[in-house]
Amino acid sequence: MEDKNDKNLMEKIISLAKRRGFVYQGSEIYGGLAGTWDYGPLGGALKNNIKNAWRKKFISSRTDMYEVDAAILMNSKVWEASGHVDTFTDPLVECTKCKKRFRDDQLKEKGICDDCGGSTGEARQFNMMFKTQIGAVEDSSAMVYLRPETAQGMFVNFKNIVDSFHPKLPFGIAQIGKAFRNEITPRDFVFRVREFEQMEIEYFSKADDWEKYFTYFKDEMLEWMEIVGIDMAKIHELEVLPEDLAHYSKRTIDFEFDFPFGRKELYGLAYRTDFDLKNHGLSYQDEETSQKLIPHVIEPTFGVDRTVLALLASAYKEDQQNEEIRSYLAFKPHMAPVICAVSPLLKNKPELVDTAKAVYGILKAEFGRVMWDDNGNIGKRYRRQDEIGTPWCIVIDFDTLTDDAVTIRDRDTGVQDRVKKNEIIDYIKERLN
Amino acid sequence: MEDKNDKNLMEKIISLAKRRGFVYQGSEIYGGLAGTWDYGPLGGALKNNIKNAWRKKFISSRTDMYEVDAAILMNSKVWEASGHVDTFTDPLVECTKCKKRFRDDQLKEKGICDDCGGSTGEARQFNMMFKTQIGAVEDSSAMVYLRPETAQGMFVNFKNIVDSFHPKLPFGIAQIGKAFRNEITPRDFVFRVREFEQMEIEYFSKADDWEKYFTYFKDEMLEWMEIVGIDMAKIHELEVLPEDLAHYSKRTIDFEFDFPFGRKELYGLAYRTDFDLKNHGLSYQDEETSQKLIPHVIEPTFGVDRTVLALLASAYKEDQQNEEIRSYLAFKPHMAPVICAVSPLLKNKPELVDTAKAVYGILKAEFGRVMWDDNGNIGKRYRRQDEIGTPWCIVIDFDTLTDDAVTIRDRDTGVQDRVKKNEIIDYIKERLN
Repeated sequence: MEDKNDKNLMEKIISLAKRRGFVYQGSEIYGGLAGTWDYGPLGGALKNNIKNAWRKKFISSRTDMYEVDAAILMNSKVWEASGHVDTFTDPLVECTKCKKRFRDDQLKEKGICDDCGGSTGEARQFNMMFKTQIGAVEDSSAMVYLRPETAQGMFVNFKNIVDSFHPKLPFGIAQIGKAFRNEITPRDFVFRVREFEQMEIEYFSKADDWEKYFTYFKDEMLEWMEIVGIDMAKIHELEVLPEDLAHYSKRTIDFEFDFPFGRKELYGLAYRTDFDLKNHGLSYQDEETSQKLIPHVIEPTFGVDRTVLALLASAYKEDQQNEEIRSYLAFKPHMAPVICAVSPLLKNKPELVDTAKAVYGILKAEFGRVMWDDNGNIGKRYRRQDEIGTPWCIVIDFDTLTDDAVTIRDRDTGVQDRVKKNEIIDYIKERLN
Repeated sequence: MEDKNDKNLMEKIISLAKRRGFVYQGSEIYGGLAGTWDYGPLGGALKNNIKNAWRKKFISSRTDMYEVDAAILMNSKVWEASGHVDTFTDPLVECTKCKKRFRDDQLKEKGICDDCGGSTGEARQFNMMFKTQIGAVEDSSAMVYLRPETAQGMFVNFKNIVDSFHPKLPFGIAQIGKAFRNEITPRDFVFRVREFEQMEIEYFSKADDWEKYFTYFKDEMLEWMEIVGIDMAKIHELEVLPEDLAHYSKRTIDFEFDFPFGRKELYGLAYRTDFDLKNHGLSYQDEETSQKLIPHVIEPTFGVDRTVLALLASAYKEDQQNEEIRSYLAFKPHMAPVICAVSPLLKNKPELVDTAKAVYGILKAEFGRVMWDDNGNIGKRYRRQDEIGTPWCIVIDFDTLTDDAVTIRDRDTGVQDRVKKNEIIDYIKERLN
């Protein structure tokens, strides 16, 4: 029963996301391309709100963070040094009967094809990095990988940042950007995909301090989840067992989230030791003491697409209004793709339309993410704005022409306030923060 | 002479960009990867300012623009339909003597190797799209391309946008994102690269209206260049000759810029007719008249990286101060990576440092892009802030402790104003807009 409800929820979210312009299937008109998704205007706005909130919390409000934006195409020696060429693999099996391929560790029953029940052969290690040829000569020296993580972009720029900015330990290098993994079985909407976006920090400190900063960033990550409006009742901390740790890590916590398709990793926090800097032959020299050392690294990692999905799952609500089931996205106002919508009660009354346009212009200049909506009757507009998670609908009616006030309807409660035109900005600002 | 000066200028810009943390060579510690560059904190901030200004002017201040964020990996059928598989090529020649490869149309002398003077063979058409294999099976059906332009991401989402938002003609679909081209000879810093970022609009209108919107967007593009601070004396409009037009275009204007290495394309404005929608089998139905038609397209294209380079080249200045040549970046204040720097006159005087920190905190909260700078003597700090283009340096000195005022130094004139602490925000805001 629980399972079926959750499957319904997932279908509702995917359907809403497509219908309202959050997320579309990639290359959809050509039958799609498995593991790729295109963001529409509302999904793109949500992603930008996520990235801006992250940049504000973890970079621009601090003095110890340096943001880089490194190329996706990197010299293949980077991935040899990082260990990815040798070890960034998933176990691949093929059904001997129907020839379908699976990740061995994701089979419902070990050795038996999920599709036809045939037996699967031995697993082989499949490297998940996408390869491409760079330059006009097709020999192996020109072979490069699309980066499978943003992290190495920070490590290989460690020396550049130190040379340009002379930071003292501890300090961090951060990056927001795309990464690519050739997943054997992409699935679960934007959860397991082949092209995705990460927000990542490599925080460098003296070896002895790693536990202090591990704890510090654990708290920072939890605070972040609250800020953006992830349902904290669905968050679980998983201490990764020593035998399950990635090759570079001595301690990792996964923050798992109860997605509609099950409890899965949302974010990760890893202690990477000095593994990466050492492999790249990099070190740090204290400018005052001249002491040379290899800093140790704490790495908080956030997926942008998984955050989108967690926010959609956290925000999706239904309630009964009159005879109808109403669905709405209860985003925190500062994260909503649209902060408010402005409507004239009737679109064929020029005096209402003109007044509404004037109000719209003022709010647009102030808040940016403001939508003009005169499509269909007022009930239809509320329904649409509820579905895209707009916190406030502002309606200009005939009374506005005499009392200079508008109706502001609250998305979650449906309560309508009458607010003077020149007080709308304050009304929204108060509730936005 | 002119040439040599310009070469010097280019070297100065590249050196400053690296030294101060704007742009680093990609994969530098592994000898680089030709045609890739990594942006440091200041270059990344400049890019973000460019993208935000573009989004504000062309998307969020309008009601007719829909922004998408499509995947970089697209189904290969997209590129068959668009004509890229057949025609997105450059003429490649190889020197018969030294085996070095060149773009035939870029050789200094036709048929003769630029490097050793050997003769180059026949040109062959080299497709500039990067290929990769997607999925675990290595057959041709799983071959995909990294997108060589963002444009097709908008075209293939045309139907999605129409279905979700029911826009009336004319309307635009816009995108900011990375694109990849396997250039035979990447060169000129971030100008001709293999991985770059575009900001693009596909503007859809009725066939008859194309000239109107072509002219309209030409003016909008010129206005944009003024807004961000491109030196307009270096801008030239080039009407592309009919025989030089791309396969999809009936009219194109290149906006060229006098880069230090020559006059080259900065932005483009193309009339793409109904070429793309037709090839993708897409059309538009007017909801009121039910009339079906294929809209025509005006395409303004902007390169983010070329904008960075044009801004650096426009902003770079030198003047004589006392005995020294001073170099500085005269960015428009709203585009500067750092709006202001805050310094205590002496870093070993706690009363100065505490006051400076308080001022810094207030300005950081207000403007975000504010730097704390207490490194070296005050002359050294000014020199550093000049080089990164910070419009205002704010210094807290001993007088501050009694008169509650600070010194604000102007980057371009060197003039110092004495401003009350509680008036700094207004002082900057006035000059920022």
